[in-house]
Amino acid sequence: MYSSKYLEQLIEELTKLPSIGQKSAQRLALHLLRVPKEDALRLADSIRDVRERVGFCGQCGNFSEEDPCRICRDPQRASGAVCVVEQPGDVLAFERTGQFRGRYHVLGGALSPLEGTSPEQLRIRELLQRLRETTAEGASVITEIILATNPNVNGEATALYLSKLLGPLGVKVTRIARGVPMGSDLEYSDLVTLARALEGRREVE
Amino acid sequence: MYSSKYLEQLIEELTKLPSIGQKSAQRLALHLLRVPKEDALRLADSIRDVRERVGFCGQCGNFSEEDPCRICRDPQRASGAVCVVEQPGDVLAFERTGQFRGRYHVLGGALSPLEGTSPEQLRIRELLQRLRETTAEGASVITEIILATNPNVNGEATALYLSKLLGPLGVKVTRIARGVPMGSDLEYSDLVTLARALEGRREVE
Repeated sequence: MYSSKYLEQLIEELTKLPSIGQKSAQRLALHLLRVPKEDALRLADSIRDVRERVGFCGQCGNFSEEDPCRICRDPQRASGAVCVVEQPGDVLAFERTGQFRGRYHVLGGALSPLEGTSPEQLRIRELLQRLRETTAEGASVITEIILATNPNVNGEATALYLSKLLGPLGVKVTRIARGVPMGSDLEYSDLVTLARALEGRREVE
Repeated sequence: MYSSKYLEQLIEELTKLPSIGQKSAQRLALHLLRVPKEDALRLADSIRDVRERVGFCGQCGNFSEEDPCRICRDPQRASGAVCVVEQPGDVLAFERTGQFRGRYHVLGGALSPLEGTSPEQLRIRELLQRLRETTAEGASVITEIILATNPNVNGEATALYLSKLLGPLGVKVTRIARGVPMGSDLEYSDLVTLARALEGRREVE
């Protein structure tokens, strides 16, 4: 169908990307043919670089080309608070807010009996290991664990499991607030979210 | 913001693509980190291949790694009809229909006084050149020119210009039908489209 087999191949590869259909793939491919050659090659090189140079941080489990990663190494971020998330994308989401100056721990998923994800498959052992780290004075480096798994069945189950596991270790364990999202309309909020928002109400300061 | 500068760079390159915003770029980049390495590298190689091996067909002006291109060389398609389009993407659109077995001529744009596109910047000289080609018997190879420029101001102006230019050369010049698109709702059709649909009405066979 296409006038060039290389063009055809590129379109085929592009359609394998999430939410890119045949038409979008075609538009992207034609765009890559139109832009200056060096722009297209820069994208190709970026994809190659990411796959050849990016690995995982042995401490937090996030994507990183260094081990430990930038965030784990940053002395400005030694706040004692560790935000536990499911995936690297969640770290990005929190970093975008600019509100969290602590560190992260990426579990690599959530507990799911249906998908057969058990605690051993998540980076929970590594989290326990990090909790054992102490300062020169013998105090725990980590003082708070913020459970920031997704507010869905699997994420909630994972948060519950971790809170039970970490509770006895003497570290403060918190869970991010679940409630009505900013900018939303109460009338169209779902029952569970509204119930959580009520349950999690706080005194106005 | 990102845990890896390579990831950051890939996201930046992806946001330069049309209709890919920051969030989509991030999702695509994380996807490329998750899939098997060879899948990601295959995409990178496809982009490189397309830019290093795909050029233009000297005859029709479409993207091609060979000159003349597959379509121009295909003996099955020597029908004498040449479909004149603005861009390579338009060739793809017609090829997808599977209805046209002739050849194409890509103008590389449309006449536009506003954008400063004049006839000399389009591949009109090459079209006239193709019209001069004759068979062994001395007859014209090209018997019909189908004007398939876009149904907008610039495309219509280009079609009008070409019809005036080609008319005296004795070749049959046609214009694709403009009317109500299949699957649409007459109630919501715009005035110009409806007027064209009326104007272009044909006797029911």
